[in-house]
Amino acid sequence: MKTLDDVLGYPIKIYQNREWFCFSLDSVLLANFATIKYSTKKIIDLGTGNGIIPLILSLRTKSKIEGVEIQNDLVNLAIESVKYNQLDDQIFIKNIDIKELKNEKNLYNTYDLVLTNPPYFKDLVASTKNLDFHKTIARHEIKINLSEIIQVASLLLKDGGTFSMINRTDRLVEMVELFKKNNIEPKKIKFIYKNTLSESTMVYVEGLKNGLPGLKVLSPFFVYNLDGTDSSEYSEICKKVL
Amino acid sequence: MKTLDDVLGYPIKIYQNREWFCFSLDSVLLANFATIKYSTKKIIDLGTGNGIIPLILSLRTKSKIEGVEIQNDLVNLAIESVKYNQLDDQIFIKNIDIKELKNEKNLYNTYDLVLTNPPYFKDLVASTKNLDFHKTIARHEIKINLSEIIQVASLLLKDGGTFSMINRTDRLVEMVELFKKNNIEPKKIKFIYKNTLSESTMVYVEGLKNGLPGLKVLSPFFVYNLDGTDSSEYSEICKKVL
Repeated sequence: MKTLDDVLGYPIKIYQNREWFCFSLDSVLLANFATIKYSTKKIIDLGTGNGIIPLILSLRTKSKIEGVEIQNDLVNLAIESVKYNQLDDQIFIKNIDIKELKNEKNLYNTYDLVLTNPPYFKDLVASTKNLDFHKTIARHEIKINLSEIIQVASLLLKDGGTFSMINRTDRLVEMVELFKKNNIEPKKIKFIYKNTLSESTMVYVEGLKNGLPGLKVLSPFFVYNLDGTDSSEYSEICKKVL
Repeated sequence: MKTLDDVLGYPIKIYQNREWFCFSLDSVLLANFATIKYSTKKIIDLGTGNGIIPLILSLRTKSKIEGVEIQNDLVNLAIESVKYNQLDDQIFIKNIDIKELKNEKNLYNTYDLVLTNPPYFKDLVASTKNLDFHKTIARHEIKINLSEIIQVASLLLKDGGTFSMINRTDRLVEMVELFKKNNIEPKKIKFIYKNTLSESTMVYVEGLKNGLPGLKVLSPFFVYNLDGTDSSEYSEICKKVL
């Protein structure tokens, strides 16, 4: 069933279908953490789902934002949300497979910022897959894997362009290797922890295409205080009217 | 001038020469964070300086601990400290160049735990080098670089043996690449931050020789609270009588 939902305290609304797919905190953090410069004019979100990332980014920049998504049902929801928020002249959602972008040579070296909140889980154990078709494609590497996404991102990015990704912390080593292999130098990493005593489960990684080495590990992001209340940084993200 | 100094609240003392080299918090953290299992019988610290790491480790295990150090003056201090603490039957300090261990084929694949707090700075800009000879060798990659140290560590480690290193966070990407290149799989990373709002400056990385992929980013280590007082985890490290 389609619902029109709030996005935290933001001045946007989003269409969702709870049976298929709902936006997650990960996407909200990715859209908040990504570096947007004055020169960031052309942006693309790879695997945009119901469009949560372009919608939040529209609160941070007036630049054009594209979103590509393989699942037609989600594309339709994303397009409805874009219309509802009157962002048709800024956000452009396309129903294509990320891998197909490899054939679009006219798009190579043209983007200032490529973002992705990719499927986190390797397509290995059938039994652990979410049974819902839409969620399975969003969460498991069925249609595309991390290596393929990063390769496409690198092709699309201008020299010096920014690649922003959120993923599970246990895939950090693989991410660093794939960034380097595709000439994207990791420049900023921000770890997300449940609280100050937890291991990190999620990580934000940002790189520059053909950038110089030199990594910063930014201040950690805690979701909760030790007493279970929302952390100050999470509260700030939630309330932010950008 | 040689002094006999306390090591935090630990039941050991250490000889130092403040003009040459003093142990740092980094070494204390490395010696506390390194995983020691029941099966950890043979341990070596590469570039042991005045022996701070073996001395602290002796409070955590009864296994044999070797330390190698290229600087003769520091070796002499380390040996004096070992004697003072009556640890002559557990800690063995040798005055050799880490690189020479590559010639000791009888030592290959024999260690359960290899630790190192290596020189952090690339030997590039002469003007930024510490002018003191002892400190310069300890801090800059003059006698050996990170790639060479990790190569030696890998040769010395048994399959499944543990490699523990502390280094500057801005060298994390290089560390991950060199671990992988030398068949050491990164398994645990712990970031050290001044406080919850700071970027991380130091990082502890632990890997297993020929281990399976699967990284954990452990709970962060803060040195200070936001009000400038010692953090609880730092206080615990300081007071720990192991």
